[in-house]
Amino acid sequence: MRGVAYVSGAYVPLARAAVSIQDRGFLFGDAVYEVWAVRRGQLNDNAEHIARLNRSLRELKMRAPMSDRALLAVVRETMRRNNVCEGIVYLQISRGAAAERDHVFPAASIAPTLVVTAKNLGLAYLAKRMRDGVKVITTPETRWARCDIKSVNLLPNALAKQQAKEAGAFEAWFVDGDGFVTEGASTTAWIIDQEGRLRTRDLSNRILHGVTRAVLLREAQERQIPVIEAPFTPADVAAAREAFVTSAGNPVVPVVAIDGKPIADGKPGAMAAKLRDIYLGAQPV
Amino acid sequence: MRGVAYVSGAYVPLARAAVSIQDRGFLFGDAVYEVWAVRRGQLNDNAEHIARLNRSLRELKMRAPMSDRALLAVVRETMRRNNVCEGIVYLQISRGAAAERDHVFPAASIAPTLVVTAKNLGLAYLAKRMRDGVKVITTPETRWARCDIKSVNLLPNALAKQQAKEAGAFEAWFVDGDGFVTEGASTTAWIIDQEGRLRTRDLSNRILHGVTRAVLLREAQERQIPVIEAPFTPADVAAAREAFVTSAGNPVVPVVAIDGKPIADGKPGAMAAKLRDIYLGAQPV
Repeated sequence: MRGVAYVSGAYVPLARAAVSIQDRGFLFGDAVYEVWAVRRGQLNDNAEHIARLNRSLRELKMRAPMSDRALLAVVRETMRRNNVCEGIVYLQISRGAAAERDHVFPAASIAPTLVVTAKNLGLAYLAKRMRDGVKVITTPETRWARCDIKSVNLLPNALAKQQAKEAGAFEAWFVDGDGFVTEGASTTAWIIDQEGRLRTRDLSNRILHGVTRAVLLREAQERQIPVIEAPFTPADVAAAREAFVTSAGNPVVPVVAIDGKPIADGKPGAMAAKLRDIYLGAQPV
Repeated sequence: MRGVAYVSGAYVPLARAAVSIQDRGFLFGDAVYEVWAVRRGQLNDNAEHIARLNRSLRELKMRAPMSDRALLAVVRETMRRNNVCEGIVYLQISRGAAAERDHVFPAASIAPTLVVTAKNLGLAYLAKRMRDGVKVITTPETRWARCDIKSVNLLPNALAKQQAKEAGAFEAWFVDGDGFVTEGASTTAWIIDQEGRLRTRDLSNRILHGVTRAVLLREAQERQIPVIEAPFTPADVAAAREAFVTSAGNPVVPVVAIDGKPIADGKPGAMAAKLRDIYLGAQPV
């Protein structure tokens, strides 16, 4: 493990960066996180990530370890110390380490834990995904009722992602009890539906309120691209003109197959490429 | 933080006991745990805890860090170093720390992380709970679909327990979409129903397969106490002769009120006391 991490007040070598075994992030998954994309040395969708982080904290009645301004200074300094130009920044805040393991929240005097890491990913991984597209599988929704909170209770997501990998796919799309896709294990699910509309599930507690999702919807609407926020089924995906996923690290990655069946001609679609350019064009340079 | 913890190969002061910020327990809640009661210096329900631990590991395709025998040696040595006579042992195994954060399982060469702690609780806390009984509230079930796996994805449990505390209660009982109690945030839910039967929900993926639950059912059946494994509603609880909770740390603790309303005469029941004696009588001395 190379690189430098910020851990609650100090920059330390990643290989030595540690938290207490009593940390509530480790004992209860009582922690929230954010992932920023860094492109050409710039943090993407900065304000949106900070807003969502604060929403997650608020929903869990967890206090922030410092002001937004100070958090961003730590994010930027961690980027700088790791020389990140094309990559991601990861930030996690837990409710801290109490003296005793107890489900109940610890005393207000217990300081939250703040961890920030950053790494370069380069451009090649994304270029390949954009060129070849990726495959998805579907899997029953197993997650808790508050997927809108970006917490580290990510075991079902990890299991789904592993299931996808073992099936030769990149992502798993959860399907709820009503037969509708909720979202991917680590990405938002989209289609260009049979009517040519840009379509993704409407916001609720069942999905993460994706930052890339929000920015892409806004940019598309500004360009009069028809948009609908409504659930869709795997059958809708199979019949769609295109499908793709988004996340901070995957800004519009085409999906070319679902459960082993090709979508449309089984090749990345033109809209996905156009939307990616629109999305990236909306970022700071 | 006083005491000594075992962390992946070494006994260290609890105040310095730490895991990597890259540990999958911290990043994804990708970890399982067990809690043993220690009474009169003896581990309670030892074989059952080891069996459940192995089941959790198997369900998550996680490998054990060492043999059952070696695990138990660590558990006993951690007890010994902390002079635990009346208390609990906590054991957590995570899928280890990979160089990169990735939902997908890490390479098989990545060693699981093993953490063991132990502490004395004394006898007073339990005597008080037995004497006074405790209150419970109900709260909608929000947890994931695999509550049978004893993982550290415990954020909904922590939130429910906090909600209970703020309502002046000890425990929150989750109520599923069909209106039935699943279980408590950290305990199994029981009633003595209107027919005088010992009643607790049947096993499924919706509840933890409680060790104390299994032992108590077995011991009751051996004594021809009528037992039924079937779901019940909050209305059944309100109409019950008695109610109680069980867990390793709470062997048959009477419940005297639900959502602010007294159960029966609002006092701990005779069956709860009898069952506690039966349960404790089944333990090593």
